[in-house]
Amino acid sequence: MTFQELFGTELPIIQAPMAGVQDHRLAAAVSAAGGLGSLPCGLLEPTEVAAELRALTAATDGPYNLNFFCHVVPAPDPDGEARWRELLAPYYAELGLDLGAEAVGRFRAPFGDATAAVVEELRPPVVSFHYGLPAAPLLARVKATGAKVIATATTVLEATWLEARGVDAVIAQGAEAGGHRGMFLGDVTTQVGTFALVPQVVAAVDVPVIAAGGVASAAGVRAALALGASGVQVGTAYLLCPEATTRPVHREALKSPGAAHTAITNVFTGRPARGIVNRLIRELGPLNDAVPPFPHAAKALAALRVAAEARGSTDFTHLWAGQNAAGCAEVPAGELTRRLAEPLRVAPRFP
Amino acid sequence: MTFQELFGTELPIIQAPMAGVQDHRLAAAVSAAGGLGSLPCGLLEPTEVAAELRALTAATDGPYNLNFFCHVVPAPDPDGEARWRELLAPYYAELGLDLGAEAVGRFRAPFGDATAAVVEELRPPVVSFHYGLPAAPLLARVKATGAKVIATATTVLEATWLEARGVDAVIAQGAEAGGHRGMFLGDVTTQVGTFALVPQVVAAVDVPVIAAGGVASAAGVRAALALGASGVQVGTAYLLCPEATTRPVHREALKSPGAAHTAITNVFTGRPARGIVNRLIRELGPLNDAVPPFPHAAKALAALRVAAEARGSTDFTHLWAGQNAAGCAEVPAGELTRRLAEPLRVAPRFP
Repeated sequence: MTFQELFGTELPIIQAPMAGVQDHRLAAAVSAAGGLGSLPCGLLEPTEVAAELRALTAATDGPYNLNFFCHVVPAPDPDGEARWRELLAPYYAELGLDLGAEAVGRFRAPFGDATAAVVEELRPPVVSFHYGLPAAPLLARVKATGAKVIATATTVLEATWLEARGVDAVIAQGAEAGGHRGMFLGDVTTQVGTFALVPQVVAAVDVPVIAAGGVASAAGVRAALALGASGVQVGTAYLLCPEATTRPVHREALKSPGAAHTAITNVFTGRPARGIVNRLIRELGPLNDAVPPFPHAAKALAALRVAAEARGSTDFTHLWAGQNAAGCAEVPAGELTRRLAEPLRVAPRFP
Repeated sequence: MTFQELFGTELPIIQAPMAGVQDHRLAAAVSAAGGLGSLPCGLLEPTEVAAELRALTAATDGPYNLNFFCHVVPAPDPDGEARWRELLAPYYAELGLDLGAEAVGRFRAPFGDATAAVVEELRPPVVSFHYGLPAAPLLARVKATGAKVIATATTVLEATWLEARGVDAVIAQGAEAGGHRGMFLGDVTTQVGTFALVPQVVAAVDVPVIAAGGVASAAGVRAALALGASGVQVGTAYLLCPEATTRPVHREALKSPGAAHTAITNVFTGRPARGIVNRLIRELGPLNDAVPPFPHAAKALAALRVAAEARGSTDFTHLWAGQNAAGCAEVPAGELTRRLAEPLRVAPRFP
């Protein structure tokens, strides 16, 4: 089955769900242009999901994807949290902040009963999961709605694990990708580049494979298809589109030469994610065992980020970006989607 | 200019020079099959280069490439060496070895006067460099012979640096590649995947770009060309060919499930290189600031490697491999070369 048959789209392009930098507007623009727009729901309450979806479906008749996290929320660990705050104490002092203040910011909730009920009510055509899959009864409820279910794999093992649990397609997320790694069965040392991951996953599973990670141009789309992918998922390239809610500090960082230097780091949330290297990554990371598990790490950082940004600094800001931020374009998302789907402009010189 | 016009080959494929696992036989087989065979000279004395080249040209009329390192050999650092031996002392004790014994193994010498004289005498059609370029007078001597000069870039900055110094083509080595990173202008945090590096380098330089890193199948070759590369350099995929001198322990490792787990490590030689994760990488690496600079680190390890292998262990063996070792095939190198050049077998499903 082709990507387009599976998802009912004109183009083999998924706009990657990117919590924190987009809402229904980006998804609607991509869906209207023939791709599969995605609505990231990991930071939304169930009522907010419904509201966003109403806005999305009011804007376009195209198919769309609701994305959820399915991490296990770890039990509170006061000792670990104390170690983390100790590590951050010099920064709090530097910014004149009270280390004991209440954390701000949204909590990343995993897919659960309430979100399953939202899916049952709203019946999205596609549901995608990050960090594995929800428990079998929850997954069964999603599948019973008729939604196509897709999920992220960062290794061959994760791809076969997902296929065995009935996903309709696997997103093979190479190490180039920006934002959180979808990894759920190994540690960060198992992560491989798109050029290696995609053909290995294609060889290992029978379901369609969607390539992600570094795909940011029409040439990249063609290359991903050449590796055996049925379609692509593109994230970073959409971050400068006017429909994205990417904040100005993030946009500036993406347009700066510094965007060429990214790292996979756990210092912002407790889970490995690729972002532009800044002070916090340099000084505490990129990977640090003392960071509390996802999503708890983010809480103590929020105050630092807000205070530093008020002074014009992104020292503590998570500036998610993949390794191909050069592919970002300040054009409407529909135009970018059509550009990605353009016939290959670099002609192969193969004899 | 196309790859084939530049190098006089039938196919847009370079067999990556791989010091320690091949000699003229692999290069000759690839050249005879229409690719560009490479002879790694980094571990050879000038007289040995001449002997290998005579054997190569006796076996085939095809074009070939002589590859040299051009690192700067650091001054001896007895304190650093002492720290390194201290780190290795428990392993020496475990294997009952004398830590003060004379080191064995070959020294990696950089390109110099003697090797330039060899190039002037032998006039190879192509010369490639790893770790930058030799000093301007040496490079001028190579270019004066009429040899095409190519060199490895792992970042856009390195690619433009090489182009400014007159290389005829740039090898864009993505992070997936096995063996030593060609990096010479940054640290390991700058290394990006093939899917990101190739289009960025193609956009930045006017000379032909050769994609390396994770290219291990006909689909991979097509994908690299789709990204704008003029050709590819393939290494790991050749390691199981009968013409390679890959040792049995290395061959077994490449065929094992463990080959899926590689890391970029400096613990074997002092320079970052990708190999299969084993005990030394796990316990001291993958990256360790206490490792002496390239190539000195290798000396103290040689005795450990030999002693451990005698006991059937690869705990201390550098098992270089890229992230696509799944592409290795136990077939003659000529056949593998032709397979790589086969028309794409996975048809793009793009509308």
